[in-house]
Amino acid sequence: MKFQTVRGMRDFLPEQAKKKQFIEDFIRKVFESYGFEPLQTPIVEDFELLAAKGSGGEAIKEEIYYFKDKGERELGLRYDLTVPLARVVASNPMLARPFKRYQISPVYRYDRPQAKRYREFTQADVDIVGALGVYADFECVQVAVDVMRGLGLDFKVRVNNRKTLEALAIEMGISKENIVDAFRSLDKLDKIGRGGVEKELKEKGIETRILGQIEANSFEEMKHYIKNEPALAELEELLELSKKNGYLEVEFDLSLARGLEYYTGTVFEIAISDGPSVGAGGRYDKLIGLYGGQETPATGISFGVDRLFDALEGSLVIGPNTDVFIIPIGAGSFAEGFLLASAFRKARVNAEIDLMGRNVKKNFEYANKRGISFAIVLGEDEVRGKKFKVKDLVSGEERGFSFGEEARAALFVKGRER
Amino acid sequence: MKFQTVRGMRDFLPEQAKKKQFIEDFIRKVFESYGFEPLQTPIVEDFELLAAKGSGGEAIKEEIYYFKDKGERELGLRYDLTVPLARVVASNPMLARPFKRYQISPVYRYDRPQAKRYREFTQADVDIVGALGVYADFECVQVAVDVMRGLGLDFKVRVNNRKTLEALAIEMGISKENIVDAFRSLDKLDKIGRGGVEKELKEKGIETRILGQIEANSFEEMKHYIKNEPALAELEELLELSKKNGYLEVEFDLSLARGLEYYTGTVFEIAISDGPSVGAGGRYDKLIGLYGGQETPATGISFGVDRLFDALEGSLVIGPNTDVFIIPIGAGSFAEGFLLASAFRKARVNAEIDLMGRNVKKNFEYANKRGISFAIVLGEDEVRGKKFKVKDLVSGEERGFSFGEEARAALFVKGRER
Repeated sequence: MKFQTVRGMRDFLPEQAKKKQFIEDFIRKVFESYGFEPLQTPIVEDFELLAAKGSGGEAIKEEIYYFKDKGERELGLRYDLTVPLARVVASNPMLARPFKRYQISPVYRYDRPQAKRYREFTQADVDIVGALGVYADFECVQVAVDVMRGLGLDFKVRVNNRKTLEALAIEMGISKENIVDAFRSLDKLDKIGRGGVEKELKEKGIETRILGQIEANSFEEMKHYIKNEPALAELEELLELSKKNGYLEVEFDLSLARGLEYYTGTVFEIAISDGPSVGAGGRYDKLIGLYGGQETPATGISFGVDRLFDALEGSLVIGPNTDVFIIPIGAGSFAEGFLLASAFRKARVNAEIDLMGRNVKKNFEYANKRGISFAIVLGEDEVRGKKFKVKDLVSGEERGFSFGEEARAALFVKGRER
Repeated sequence: MKFQTVRGMRDFLPEQAKKKQFIEDFIRKVFESYGFEPLQTPIVEDFELLAAKGSGGEAIKEEIYYFKDKGERELGLRYDLTVPLARVVASNPMLARPFKRYQISPVYRYDRPQAKRYREFTQADVDIVGALGVYADFECVQVAVDVMRGLGLDFKVRVNNRKTLEALAIEMGISKENIVDAFRSLDKLDKIGRGGVEKELKEKGIETRILGQIEANSFEEMKHYIKNEPALAELEELLELSKKNGYLEVEFDLSLARGLEYYTGTVFEIAISDGPSVGAGGRYDKLIGLYGGQETPATGISFGVDRLFDALEGSLVIGPNTDVFIIPIGAGSFAEGFLLASAFRKARVNAEIDLMGRNVKKNFEYANKRGISFAIVLGEDEVRGKKFKVKDLVSGEERGFSFGEEARAALFVKGRER
């Protein structure tokens, strides 16, 4: 019988795993270039934590992997990296502020499986805990721009602010108690269009004048209505800083509400141009307090690594890990072959040796299939003469070296690496 | 209320996560230097796979995280990386041979929690699929030596061979059907001592003469008894190759049986000198066939990253990700501060900027607490004069630069990095 992966989850075979790793390594480098430090938390958490007020609530049970252990404790697989962060911050009050942490890890959701939606997927998050104000929000935008530009993707970062949107909603005649409901409908604008949202709002008995503002999407017009709202200055500074830094990809978008209730200020969303959303985030100043910690301001951004992988898989080309392939001919050559391979590795060249005892032809076929650039055939002559030739498998050029000259041979390989 | 981690699992706060990452990054580098390629598989697998014959069997249910999803499918969290590998190989017959893959990922066991045993822990595995013979086994030993030497640990790699041990057992009067039972007892030698094992063997009615051989631990004496066993040549060549490569840490150990039934040839175990086992492995030529694939030879080694972490945590020192800390003074300096930080990042220096709007003294305290080496104070004077000074926080030395000279300033920082 053949076994398969669990429904909604997938393997990354080496070709794919290397691309995913490349994306994750790159994101990590960007995160670290801002001084973010890593955090690792378990994949399994107490259900009580996952269902705490402020994030999912009890209803989350239907959307996650929930189970009991043999001691009847209720557990679940984490569905994001924000809830574990809130737990860590709440229970480690000694962490220096700002606490700037990143985490690149898998999360789990029991969604209906569909194209490009997975039940196991990787998130790459940065969060800044303890910093009020727009500078920390802006740093999240910077991280987004660096990641997306670095990966060579055309993209937009759409930004808005929950507080200014709320102020505008109130000016447009939506009552305070209707705002959460109104935002939930506005969030569907992309999916169901203006007509759909208007219909929904009317059914809920909510004033629809705001839709005209959203359609106009004019910062100046919005400003006119809410000039006394303090968050306006924050949003303005965020856009100003983006401009000063040459971030033409950052745009004000009045339609961006972000469904999640826990956002309290700046919100943003990163989308590939004419493509899917690949990241989102915002400020959530109340959440950590709900997890038993002191009320602590926080802001962050989360990338969907699988979305980035799906967008880049076709265009990324990553060579094999092996730089030099060593082919010993005859049992007497293997001992020397192993020594040669070790010498290359010491010189920081990745060396692989034939472990199958195949003939030269078969070995070259294997090296070609793997896309390896250099090969060394080590026969009796070479072992007796204490010498070897490095063959460039693309140009066909060969260069001879003596045993002991592996560091020089390594330079030859590195100098011609594609 | 305060939430905690699930019983038997732990957070890695930044200080610790960096050390764990360092160990994992280093292991990955060694793996890649041999041409191993990455594989990623889901953490959740079908229970049927986890309980398949050859690995755990149905009894494994008691030792793992087992649960049903909302569709009543039986699932479990993987307890090792070998079973998923066997699944991948069995269902992807087109993968080129040898298939040399590595995976560094968490696994889960529902063990009784105790000191230094965790229910979530990270394994780092390399396996060579498709290669018969001792060369592939030797490569696993090489990987072990490179990892352990590179991490600066004193260690031994103990090696043995299941086939030679079996041949000796038969020569010592143990019947074929008692061998699995006998090895299970021998495997406890470290724990219960010779007396304990002797007692167990006698209770099982198994001949105990082999204990004298194990105590002598003489390769030559063993050879005398089993000179017609073909596996003897393999074991001899493995030890010979180790010697030729100067691996003084590799030792023949006749007591090494390795409890797991699936081993079919070479077995090895890596232990810190006077410390715990941190890795083990061996040849398993029958396992993949049991997962629905063609019978395929395979050999591999698995490191326990948490064991290595526990051994190294006290001695590893890893600096902060931030190289330069930028302190803008006054709201007017932040825009320039963000530009300066970006310029440093472009020059591959990790730059962090104050996001809290704190005064100079508080910012220096924070930089010291984080262990950051360089700081730049950016006040009105600097912004007006378009210049900045980089201060070495250890020596106190300062060096001045103009805006636009960030690449030179970056060289100054990199040249003095500790």
